[in-house]
Amino acid sequence: MRNDRILLSHGEGGKRTRDLIAEVIARHFDNPVLSPFLDAGLLGRIEGEIAFTTDGYVVTPPFFPGGDIGRLAVCGTVNDLAVCGAKAVAISCGLILEEGLPADTLTRALSSMREAAAEAGVFVACGDTKVVETGKGDGIFITTAGVGVLAAGWKPAPGKVRPGDRILLTGTMGDHQIAVLIARKGLSIEAPVRSDVAPLSGLLLPLVGRFGGKVRFMRDPTRGGVGVTLNEMAAAAGARFVLEEARLPVREPVRGVCEILGFDPLYLANEGKAVLIVDGDAAEEILAALREHICGKEAAVIGEVTEGAPGVRMRTAVGGLRAVDYPVGDQLPRIC
Amino acid sequence: MRNDRILLSHGEGGKRTRDLIAEVIARHFDNPVLSPFLDAGLLGRIEGEIAFTTDGYVVTPPFFPGGDIGRLAVCGTVNDLAVCGAKAVAISCGLILEEGLPADTLTRALSSMREAAAEAGVFVACGDTKVVETGKGDGIFITTAGVGVLAAGWKPAPGKVRPGDRILLTGTMGDHQIAVLIARKGLSIEAPVRSDVAPLSGLLLPLVGRFGGKVRFMRDPTRGGVGVTLNEMAAAAGARFVLEEARLPVREPVRGVCEILGFDPLYLANEGKAVLIVDGDAAEEILAALREHICGKEAAVIGEVTEGAPGVRMRTAVGGLRAVDYPVGDQLPRIC
Repeated sequence: MRNDRILLSHGEGGKRTRDLIAEVIARHFDNPVLSPFLDAGLLGRIEGEIAFTTDGYVVTPPFFPGGDIGRLAVCGTVNDLAVCGAKAVAISCGLILEEGLPADTLTRALSSMREAAAEAGVFVACGDTKVVETGKGDGIFITTAGVGVLAAGWKPAPGKVRPGDRILLTGTMGDHQIAVLIARKGLSIEAPVRSDVAPLSGLLLPLVGRFGGKVRFMRDPTRGGVGVTLNEMAAAAGARFVLEEARLPVREPVRGVCEILGFDPLYLANEGKAVLIVDGDAAEEILAALREHICGKEAAVIGEVTEGAPGVRMRTAVGGLRAVDYPVGDQLPRIC
Repeated sequence: MRNDRILLSHGEGGKRTRDLIAEVIARHFDNPVLSPFLDAGLLGRIEGEIAFTTDGYVVTPPFFPGGDIGRLAVCGTVNDLAVCGAKAVAISCGLILEEGLPADTLTRALSSMREAAAEAGVFVACGDTKVVETGKGDGIFITTAGVGVLAAGWKPAPGKVRPGDRILLTGTMGDHQIAVLIARKGLSIEAPVRSDVAPLSGLLLPLVGRFGGKVRFMRDPTRGGVGVTLNEMAAAAGARFVLEEARLPVREPVRGVCEILGFDPLYLANEGKAVLIVDGDAAEEILAALREHICGKEAAVIGEVTEGAPGVRMRTAVGGLRAVDYPVGDQLPRIC
């Protein structure tokens, strides 16, 4: 259906729905769990503790340098599991398509989901497709959910965070959001920035297997960036985090776009990064382990946990200490 | 936020997002798995085989006689698990909201999800909320996924279907779709029809526990109705199904609306019904068991499995035998 478009009748449950699901969607995700077309995918027994997550993807435009909505939809859910110490076992694929969507857009997104799933070692176990009228959607929305298993006996333990712990970031900030921004219509910015969207399971799961409780807890700083994520982490841990401004890794072109447009890289979304709070004594060893992996080559210690009231502070390049809060004003919508 | 509206900034990851999630969404679903605000809900160990499903809900209007999008989003996923013999353990709640949505619409839908979840004995373990610009969505879309456990050692076995098996339907056809149709703006039809949307786990799971393999397999005839569902079941079983037109249960007001508008009740969506293929020798006993439950009071044997090429046939009231195929023409969109 390369030159075709999605019609309302593709979502009405009749022959066109059957053909779309059987010939386009299921063909992309072909596997023994999905192919019997039951109302649920039968995963069998899963040994170990189960983790469950979901995320919706409404990014515009759906294709951008370094990734697309399909890759995002797989990696985002795989990463939400990975930062909880869980290996993704199966994901779901919920599509909401707008009438008139070029079929080619759908098939490109599905191909990308398949590739990202293979990269992350996960498969699509179930799915659903709805079609809404032109003007009642925006091309393609994807909601994935993921079932994972705690692989290394490790669990997030925000309660174990204590002064002296270090804050690690696995790479540069803001690449994803700036790449999407540049791809957005009507903006005439040019900069060599690619989204960092990638599955982090290969980076994080061996790490928690090796270092156990020395890794206190992890989050992926997506929407809201490192700034919001650290605020949420500090609140969960009841701890004070102090960042070193000079240590925050940002690529030059990202910094340049931020200076022009007045964005703070601290609040820009990332889709292939994690923040880790780790035992201070093990921080250098954990940093070295992160840097051995392709997704962690630019990992850095960006701050530490100190005594004091819970919250996030930043030691600036000139030596001051300022509060890092949730942003209140307008950010950029539709970036994931 | 009763008089408020959803803003783009509710989806941007900053303070408004945090407040929406903490004060509105999490408050509705408050439970020990969701409340730590990790990237995934930790479900612990689950003994038994796992089933996993997802469904998106885009119904318009979001509130209709007998139900609403929130109740639909919970029951639909619970039912997809139930027809596979699985008891829902946890569900996810993925929201895509349109900028300008009255907050009251959101809170009503969430309240309804909470009530339906309690009714079905399941809880919301994880969620995500995105906001799209006015004109890029349609009020509220909900995508739920569900993790369930095969409760009774029973599994769908389309391969065990054989001639002499009976086809059972747990109640009347088309109530949901006609209720939504009547609620739709611009239609001046009045009829006392309420959606049948309900969780079927309480009806179906004890049944497969009691009758085991005598229940071959089950499906819930949602989008596309009993007609499409039976076609899919016949294809999966490689069997011929013959329906008795006179035995198909349809409420009088539904039949009336269908006659006026030219709909065939066989293809209308249901949200609280199941089709079962059962051992012919046990059919009457299974029918009696169904009728003991409030969701199965109007259950009926609607046909049987015969020798012959796979497909669905209908013995009409005047004695003829006609093919029941997938509908090709236009149905009604956005009914679930």
